[in-house]
Formats: sequence, C-alpha cells, structure tokens
Amino acid sequence: MSTTMMAILAAGALSLVYGAWAIRSVLAASPGNARMQEIAGAIQEGASAYLNRQYTTIGLVGIVIFAVVWWLLGALTAVGFAAGAVLSGAAGYIGMIVSVRANVRTTQASSESLAAGLGIAFKSGAVTGMLVAGLALLGVAVYFYVLTDVLGHDATSRQVIDALVALGFGASLISIFARLGGGIFTKGADVGGDLVGKVEAGIPEDDPRNPATIADNVGDNVGDCAGMAADLFETYAVTIVATMVLASIFFVSTAGATMMIYPLVIGATCIVTSIIGTFFVRLGSGGSIMGALYKGFIASAILSLIALYFVTDEVLGLATTYTQTNGLSFTGQDLYICGVLGLVITGLIIWITEYYTGTNYRPVQSVAEASNSGHGTNVIQGLAVSLEATALPAIVIVAGIIVTFNLAGLFGIAIAVTTMLALAGMVVALDAFGPVTDNAGGIAEMAELDDSVRKTTDALDAVGNTTKAVTKGYAIGSAGLGALVLFAAYTEDLKFFAASPDAYPYFAGIDVNFSLSNPYVVVGLLVGGMLPYLFGAMGMMAVGRSAGAIVEEVRRQFKAKPGIMQGTEKPDYGQAVDLLTKAAIREMIIPSMLPVLSPVVLFFIISAVADKSAAFSALGAMLLGVIVTGLFVAISMTAGGGAWDNAKKVIEDGAHGGKGSEAHKAAVTGDTVGDPYKDTAGPAVNPMIKITNIVALLLLAVLAH
Amino acid sequence: MSTTMMAILAAGALSLVYGAWAIRSVLAASPGNARMQEIAGAIQEGASAYLNRQYTTIGLVGIVIFAVVWWLLGALTAVGFAAGAVLSGAAGYIGMIVSVRANVRTTQASSESLAAGLGIAFKSGAVTGMLVAGLALLGVAVYFYVLTDVLGHDATSRQVIDALVALGFGASLISIFARLGGGIFTKGADVGGDLVGKVEAGIPEDDPRNPATIADNVGDNVGDCAGMAADLFETYAVTIVATMVLASIFFVSTAGATMMIYPLVIGATCIVTSIIGTFFVRLGSGGSIMGALYKGFIASAILSLIALYFVTDEVLGLATTYTQTNGLSFTGQDLYICGVLGLVITGLIIWITEYYTGTNYRPVQSVAEASNSGHGTNVIQGLAVSLEATALPAIVIVAGIIVTFNLAGLFGIAIAVTTMLALAGMVVALDAFGPVTDNAGGIAEMAELDDSVRKTTDALDAVGNTTKAVTKGYAIGSAGLGALVLFAAYTEDLKFFAASPDAYPYFAGIDVNFSLSNPYVVVGLLVGGMLPYLFGAMGMMAVGRSAGAIVEEVRRQFKAKPGIMQGTEKPDYGQAVDLLTKAAIREMIIPSMLPVLSPVVLFFIISAVADKSAAFSALGAMLLGVIVTGLFVAISMTAGGGAWDNAKKVIEDGAHGGKGSEAHKAAVTGDTVGDPYKDTAGPAVNPMIKITNIVALLLLAVLAH
Repeated sequence: MSTTMMAILAAGALSLVYGAWAIRSVLAASPGNARMQEIAGAIQEGASAYLNRQYTTIGLVGIVIFAVVWWLLGALTAVGFAAGAVLSGAAGYIGMIVSVRANVRTTQASSESLAAGLGIAFKSGAVTGMLVAGLALLGVAVYFYVLTDVLGHDATSRQVIDALVALGFGASLISIFARLGGGIFTKGADVGGDLVGKVEAGIPEDDPRNPATIADNVGDNVGDCAGMAADLFETYAVTIVATMVLASIFFVSTAGATMMIYPLVIGATCIVTSIIGTFFVRLGSGGSIMGALYKGFIASAILSLIALYFVTDEVLGLATTYTQTNGLSFTGQDLYICGVLGLVITGLIIWITEYYTGTNYRPVQSVAEASNSGHGTNVIQGLAVSLEATALPAIVIVAGIIVTFNLAGLFGIAIAVTTMLALAGMVVALDAFGPVTDNAGGIAEMAELDDSVRKTTDALDAVGNTTKAVTKGYAIGSAGLGALVLFAAYTEDLKFFAASPDAYPYFAGIDVNFSLSNPYVVVGLLVGGMLPYLFGAMGMMAVGRSAGAIVEEVRRQFKAKPGIMQGTEKPDYGQAVDLLTKAAIREMIIPSMLPVLSPVVLFFIISAVADKSAAFSALGAMLLGVIVTGLFVAISMTAGGGAWDNAKKVIEDGAHGGKGSEAHKAAVTGDTVGDPYKDTAGPAVNPMIKITNIVALLLLAVLAH
Repeated sequence: MSTTMMAILAAGALSLVYGAWAIRSVLAASPGNARMQEIAGAIQEGASAYLNRQYTTIGLVGIVIFAVVWWLLGALTAVGFAAGAVLSGAAGYIGMIVSVRANVRTTQASSESLAAGLGIAFKSGAVTGMLVAGLALLGVAVYFYVLTDVLGHDATSRQVIDALVALGFGASLISIFARLGGGIFTKGADVGGDLVGKVEAGIPEDDPRNPATIADNVGDNVGDCAGMAADLFETYAVTIVATMVLASIFFVSTAGATMMIYPLVIGATCIVTSIIGTFFVRLGSGGSIMGALYKGFIASAILSLIALYFVTDEVLGLATTYTQTNGLSFTGQDLYICGVLGLVITGLIIWITEYYTGTNYRPVQSVAEASNSGHGTNVIQGLAVSLEATALPAIVIVAGIIVTFNLAGLFGIAIAVTTMLALAGMVVALDAFGPVTDNAGGIAEMAELDDSVRKTTDALDAVGNTTKAVTKGYAIGSAGLGALVLFAAYTEDLKFFAASPDAYPYFAGIDVNFSLSNPYVVVGLLVGGMLPYLFGAMGMMAVGRSAGAIVEEVRRQFKAKPGIMQGTEKPDYGQAVDLLTKAAIREMIIPSMLPVLSPVVLFFIISAVADKSAAFSALGAMLLGVIVTGLFVAISMTAGGGAWDNAKKVIEDGAHGGKGSEAHKAAVTGDTVGDPYKDTAGPAVNPMIKITNIVALLLLAVLAH
C-alpha cells in the first residue's frame, strides 16, 4: 500500500474515531426527566420501526438489482453495488440513532443555556456529517485499493470503472428511496398533523394531545436526518467516482493512477479540516447561532484551502505539467485553483441561499409582508421568490463551469466539484443539527417544560431552517456544476466501446451525434426535462395523500377517545406512526423507479423507431435535460419552501400582527405548501438526476457485455 | 402576380370581409337597457384608455428599435419590423373594440336564450380570430410579394429573409408587451379586487360597490383578448416566417420559391376552412356549450385535412419528389402527412388540456377534493397537477418531432408546426369568446339582472376557462415543436455567413460546435433555462405589487366614501383603472427587455471571456435552453391555473359544501394563486421564447453587416 493510500484510509478512519467520540460525548449528557425520556423513547421506537421497514423494503429491491447486476456485469460490480448501498444505509441509520438520542439531551441542555443546547445538537449533527463523508471516502478508497492492489486489476480498466460506478449506483438507489420515503413520512406527518391539529382542533404545534405529534418528530429524524445523509452520501460518492472515471479516461499509466487517487486525497484532506472545524463552532459574545456555525464552516474552508495547497504539491506537484490523452495540458497548480474555486462556489451558494431563506433579507420579508393581504398573495409571493431564487445560483454555476474549464478542461470542472463536496462532512453537520433542534423543541412542548426552554430551542430551530435549505442548494448546485462531468463519463464510455467494435459488437458502426441540430438530441433534452416535473408531481401528490390519511386517523382518534382533548386519555401515537410508515413505503416505490427505468425505456424505444446511434444521442441528451430543468425545479422548491417557513417565523416573532393574526394564518398556509416542496419533491431531484446518469452508464456497460 | 399568390391574398382578404360582416352582425344586436349600456360604456372607456397608453409606450420603444434596425440593417428590414408591429397591434386593438361591445350584447342575448348568448359571444371571438390569422397571413404574404415581385429581390436572398425575420420581430415585440402589460393589468385587478372585495368586504365578485370591478372587466379585454391576440399573431407570423427561411435555405431556385410559398398556401387554405367552420358552431339538442364549440373546431380540422390534400397536390404535386441541398428527399405527400400530423398534435393538445382543466376529470376534481382539508392542501394539489400536466404534452411533442422528422426532415417539422398554427383563426375564436362571456356575467351582476341571466353567462364562462387554457397550451406546444425550426434558422444562418468569410469578415475563422460536450453549450442551456424562471418571477411579483396597490386604493375609497357599501355613493371606477394602467405599463418594461437583451449580453460576455466560436455556441444553446425549461414552466402554469379556477367552479356548483364553505375559501385561494400563473407569467413565456430566438437571428444579421 502506498503512503498516499495509507493516509487516505487513515483520514477515513479518523472520521469514524471522531464519530465514536462524539457519540459517547452526546450520550454522556443528561437525558432529562422521566417524562422527557418517555417521549424520546416513543420517537426512538417510531424512527427505528420506520427505518427498519424502509431498509427491509429497499433490501428486497436491492437484492433483485444485486442479482441482475451480478448476472449482467459480474461479481465485482455486484459487490460494488452492495457496498455503496450498505454504507449509505449505515451512515443514515447511525445518524438517525444518534439524532433520536441527542434530541432529548438538547432539550435538557437548552434548559441550562443556549450554548449547551447548541453544543449537543451540533455534535450530534457532526456525527452524521463525519460518518457520511468518512464512510463514502472509505467505501470508494478501500474498494479501489482491493480492486487494484489486492486483485491486481489495472486502475484504468473497465473492471475497476464498472465496479466503482456500481458503488455509486448502490448509494444512489438508497438515496432516492430514503429521500422520498423519509420525505413523504415527515411531510405527511407535518402537513396532516398541522391541518387537523392547528387548523381544526386549534391546538398548538407539538401539543401532546395531537396523535400525529410523535410521528412528526419521528419524521424529522427519518427524513431530514437519515434521508439527507443518504442523499449527501451518494452525491459525495458519485462525484468522486465520476472524477476517478474521467481521470482513468483522460490520463494513461502512472499519471492516470495518480489522477485517480487525487480526488480521494482531496476528500481525505477535507475530512481532517472539517473535524478540526467542528471545534471552532461556539457561541460568540453576540450570541449569534448562525455566526457560531459559520465560524466552524469558515475555519474548515480556510484550513482546506491551505492544506490542499501543500497536499496538491506533494501528490501532483504544483509546477508539474500533466497532459491528457487529447492533448490538453495543465499544471498541478491549475487543479489546485479549480479546487479553490469549488470552495468559493460553495461559499457563494451558501450566501445566496441564506439571502433567499434568511429572516433578515428582502425575499422572506416580502413573503411575510404579502401575508397581510391573505393566503393567496402569500403563496403568489412565495412562488415568485422560489422562481427568482434560481437565477443567481445558475449564474454562479455557469461562471464556475467557464472558469474551471478554461483552467484545466473537464477535469478541472470535476476537481472543482470534488472539492466542493469534500466539505460535505461540515455541511451535513450544519444540516443534521436541524432535526435535532426541531425535535428538542417538540419534546420541550410535550414535556411541558418552561417556556424559556422552548424559546431557546426555537432560536436554534430557525437557524436549522436556513442550514437545511443551504445543504439542498449545495447538493443540487454540485449536480449542476457536475453535469458536464457525468455527461463526459457517458460520452467517453461510449467512445471507448465504439472504438473497439470487435470486442463490443453491439457498438459496431454506431455514429453518435450530440449536436443540438440532431432532433434526437432535442427529444432527449425534452424527455429528460420532463422527468423532474413528473417526479415532483408524484412526490407532492404522495404527501397530499399521506397527509389526508393522517387527518382521517387523527379525526378518528378524537372521535373514539373524546378524553384526548381534555387530557384525560392518551392518544395512540403508534397508530399514526404505523399508518405513515405503510403509506411512505408504498408511495416511494413508483416515483423511485421513474429515473431507473426512463433511460432504459427511452433507449429501446428510440432504438426501435430509429436506430442505435439515435438512441445513444437521445439518451445522452436526456442526461443533460434532466439537469437543465432539475436544477431549476430543485432550487426553486427548496429555496421557496425555506422562505415560506421563515416568513411564518418572522410573523410568529411579532411582525404583521404576530401569532394568531390573519397574516399568521396566511403564513401557515404558505408554510404548508412549502413543506412538500422543500422536504420531499425538491431534495429528491438531486438523487434522481444521479440515478438517471448512473443507469445510463450501467446500460452502456450491460450493452457492451 | 402568380395565381397562387392571388389566391393567398384573396383568402387573407376574405378573413377581413368575414370580420367586417361579423362586426356588423354583433353590433346589430340589442345592447340592453340604459344601466347595462352605462356599465359597458365604462368598460369601453377604460379598455381604450389602457390600450392607447400601452400602444403609445410600445410605440416609443418601437420607434427607437425601428431607427436602430434601419441604421444597422437597412430600410426594408426596418419597414418589415414596423409592418409586423402595426398589424399585430391592429389585430389586438380591433379585437378589443369588438369585444367590449359584444359583452353587453351577450348579456342581453343571454337573457333570451343560451344559444343567442353563445352566438354573439362566439361571433365576437371569431372577429378577433380571423383578424389575427388574416392580418398575419396578409402581412407576410404582401411584404413577401412586394420584396420579390415588386422590388425584384431574389426570394431566397438575405435581403428578403432579414426583412421577413424583422416582421416577426415586430410582431413579437408587441406581443410580449401586450401579454405582460395586459396580464399584469387584468390579474392586478382580479387578485386585488377579490382580496379586498370578497375577502375583506364580503361582497360577491362583480359587485358594483367594488371600485375595482370595472377595472377587472377592462382587464379581461386588454389581457385575455388584446394580449392573447397579439401573442397568437406573433406565433403565427414567426412560424410562417421561420418555415419560409428554412425553405430558402434547404431548396434552390424554383423549388425554393415554391417551398417558400407553401406555408402561405397552408395558411390561406385553413383561413377559408376556419371561416366555414365558424358556421358549424351551434348548440345541439343536449345543450353542451363545449360540444357546440368543438363542432366548429372539428369541422375546420376535417375540412382542412381534405382541402390541404388537393391544395398540396396542386401546388407541390403529391407524387413529386423534392430534394434538399443537403441531399434529403421527400415527396409532396410526405409534407401533406406532416401537415396532417400537425392537426393531430393540435387535437391531442386540446384533449390533454381539457383533461387537466375540465371540471369532469380527475385533476380538477382532486384539487376540489383537496380543498376540504384547507388552503394549504388545495395549493399543494394544484401545484402537483400543474407539474404533472406537462408530461403528456411533452410526450406528444416529442413523438411529433420524431415522426415528422423521419418523414421529411426539419422541413417536415416546420410544415407540421405551420399547419398546427394555420388553424389559429379557429382556436383564437374559441379563446376570445372567453373574455366576452366573463364580461357579460359581470354586466349582468352589476346591472342587477335576473339570476337566470347570470346562470347562463356563468355556464358560458366555465367553458371559456378551458378554451383559454387550450389556446395557451397550443401556443406553447407549437413553440416546443418548432424549437428545432427556430434553432435551425439560427444554425443555417450561421453556416451561411461562415461560408463566405470574405463577404462577412466578422465570421472569418469561426468554428462553432453545438455538441453537448462543449461546455459553452451547457452554459447556454443553463442561462437559457434560467430566463423563463426569472421572467416568471418578475411577472408574478408585478401582479403582486399591482394587486397590492388596488387593495390600498379600494380601502381608501371605502374609507373616503362610507356610502359606497350602503349603495348611496358611487365608487370612482376610473381611479382604479387609471392606477392599474400606470402600474401595468411601468411593470411590463423590465421583464420585456430581459429576452431582448439576454442574447446580446450572453454573446458579448462569452466573446470576451472565451472567443466568438464559443459565444455563437452558447447563444445557440441558449435558444434551446429557453425552450426546454420554458415549455414546462408555461404548460405547468397555464394548466395549473386553469385547474385551480375550475376547481373553484366545481365547488361553487355545489360540491364539497358549495359557496361559502371552508372548502370554497380554500378554492378561492387556489384560484388567486392560479391567476398570475395562468394569465400573466405562463402565457408570456411563449412570446419570450420567440423574442430570444429572433433577437439571436437579428444579431447574426447585424454582425454580418
């Protein structure tokens, strides 16, 4: 094993050590009084029940796909698929286990001080963050090491590439199920619980009399924690794999092997800097929570910037010139600058997202203001903000593409995206902090703690809304920037197969034309463009149906047990959790199959009505089509949802008449609309894009076999 | 003059004769009692005042552009621009003048019978429809005749092409201003009036005590009638021009001249069949209004199918083989079949739109059903329907592209779109019927006529909601199908200039690559994809602001004149009209400039940071990017808005508790949200796409000069 590989594995292992330490440290905190522990126990039970069932279902689908992949592409590829799926599942599962234990401890700590609450919640988020980055890095690195050093395959061979792509596929498959299933669960509970609780029964959010209230808290953990972790795991893994695939294509022999290692090096470096960064998160004298979190992020980013300089010099040599097989040359320093640009893009996207979803800026305030004239104008303004919020991120991504491409071609873009995602550990930490604080507030409410505790957890929660939106913008932004990388992996694979028609007879005589003048390219762009819309529709409708089922269930309980509202009878929380579990599992299947099957169906239909060349063109264009509309759909949904949510918070904090005013009712409507937008349909678009791309790559591999 | 050209001009003239006859026939009907005439007079005055002001503003912008076009591209091109603008304006203006006189006559006729009301309203719509198709056809045909026969330019020369493209530009410019200005006016009045009237004061829609009520009725005429007419005029003109441009590029000498005439022949044929079709519109024994309208449409379509067969045989020869300069061959019959497919696509889009917006089908009923659980779920379900509604039209368009391309290449696609739009006269007639019936209902309410009259006009109005959605789907669908035609016009122009670097030195040495692997193509796709989102955001916000201004104005009047609510004082209707006029004119400018300036800015930025070749690639890709997202944005907004509107009608007809129920309140919210979606932002996307394309073509011409 080379020292570089040893260092990479050590960094991955360090993230696990950090995780273990942080878990111990969270669990060592006081879990509060008996009532609090009882509530937390119910949440833990519900979350475990849901995730067990979700993973069982995914497991069944996964075993079928595992068998198909083995049969079509061999054992090593199938094992890659399994590794990606299992590790992604593990990151989400462990994250959830910690999160459902950190929530009550955060409540307890918040009763002491804001700083203590923030400390527990952030540490819990950091466990998930470091596990996501660490397990993804370890998965790719260890399997790459096994394939090349242990089994002796050439680093740039098809065998290795197919196996790594399959690892990405495994991660993506978990991710889309987890995002959708978790998203449907959490928003079904949230929307349904609010409708029947706040609107019909007139009881506040998280009131223990509402039978959906435990389900709502379970949802935060399985959707916003486990679902989000799976999403970022796959984004991280797929990006590193795609960059490695490009490296194997663009460079030969030693340079190829070095360049394949470089993305792993970037990941390893940033895991170490992220871990150091977590120790910078602490409340300043001003007491700004966002400021405390930013300190951690900025520390990680600056440390990464410095560390990558030396690491790149060590691994690549800053002054060394590398020449791609197509003749393009650039230096190690060019790649370093691309990495820096990746960090800059991350910073800009965070800044733009905060502008569109933060309570202090024009967009959220305009939505709050529009609530004065009613439900309709609140929604109109929210939709307008959601549409507008796509423009600046698109411009940042476009600028990123132009600059990094001019520095070091497609590989430069790939390195920028890799570096952008290398900070995933820190970004996920900021995000996974959200559901913990959301739960903490719920527990404070249900355990009837002093109002001051709820106030502290509410302050933490408001920041959580913004960090949640930031992570989604970051994930989809990286997909937009990485569009060309994924597309290049497809075209280069195609070129490779077409160049050896003897070895790959299916590809004999094909002549693929990706020009926009080719009608099949336009066909692919339109069909790809359609997918996020259809997928979004399915997600929204699934939430509507699940919420409707919850409304009926809660009404039934109120009717069957009239004592619930008087506080003399206990609602059956488990029934609501169980109902949502079944609904979410049922509803996640069909939409998840859409991106898996669409590339295959499109390919064979166009093959039948035209020819293989046309089908390959249409399929390639579909990969870009799904990103072109997906980017806008996802950003608009996640930013718009965040803006609606925080507009409600602005009013609840006293603006425009405060709680209970007409403006507040309108803002609640906007928040409800934003729920499935930002937590179900919007974030699931990112894994959907990835799956479409990876299925296309695997289809090529299958056709080649 | 050839007999073919004579026949074309005769068909155009026939539409004017039909228009004159229909206007006389409408005006001959009774305008009702004095109160009704007084109300109608106020609407007439307001509509004229607004349109005069709007056209004055557009005129100022137009004169500047006219001068710039003259300076950069010469007199003939500038005259083409002016002709397109003036004729488009005339079609909208005359349509509005008839529409504001037909409204009160429809009210009066509705007091006699449903058939009589339908008769007047449809005839008024038919005036607008035939003027749109007739003036557009005459404009293009006469100018083409003048350029070639009178001035002796070669039909396929740059001079002729540039002049025709400029004619399209003139039409598009009017169209985007009229769609946006009219859309902001009408929805500002509608949303603002509803908020302060229905919600705050608790008075019904169209109540004469609401100071915004006349403005609301004015809005129907300037937005849904004049704005829509300008939109379809430009869609028609631009499509025919683009097809002629392709013909001039693909064919040489005689075949070229014949093929350039063929789209005009299709237009002429369908104007005649549309006029005949109008006489088939009559109520059957079942009394179905939609059925009566469909009879007219189906008659036109079947007659067109038959007539085009013989006409194509006469002009092209069904068995004659034509060979493009690039070697592709097809027969006259192939082109005829492409035309038939254009009609089939129109039929399918109408059918799909009716499914998504009609009161009898699942989508609208699901939105109505979701209103039971509140404002939030109504909006969620409406958004889900709006997203879903894009899928089938996209598939129809994709299938249309594949089949027509296989029959006769790009020119086959162009002929399909031309034939699709050749029925514009009939489609616009169905649509322009809507605002007349909407006004008729308002007048019945304000003049306090018997409830049975309002019931009749309401029945007519519900159908109008669907036909309005149909026209928008049809316009944007043709843009999607025509995407490749517009893009081909750009690429072929570029090729033409690049082939003669001596004559066009700016194009020396450029090497444009439209492959998806080119990062500048992805940049163009993303920037183009961003435009409909940003544009939509601006449109929605403009409506929000205008509605807010109306709310304040109405509140002010209620406060200043407390007698209004008691019916003892008259509200100042003119004040609200005036306020909206100013707001709409002010708000339409910046969004309208977005598609005019974006292509130019993108081109020069990319030229500066990279090179001309990259800039031409990015610009071309932008033209497709704007269609890829624009198609989905526009269809989702127009279909979703229609579904919300009719879901409210379903409830008002008694479902889910009927008027005044909680479900009804939720449905009103959905309708309010849908208003700017379907009548401002959504429909304006179509002209926006066209402008982006035409500005790119003109930019090439300018760079060549």
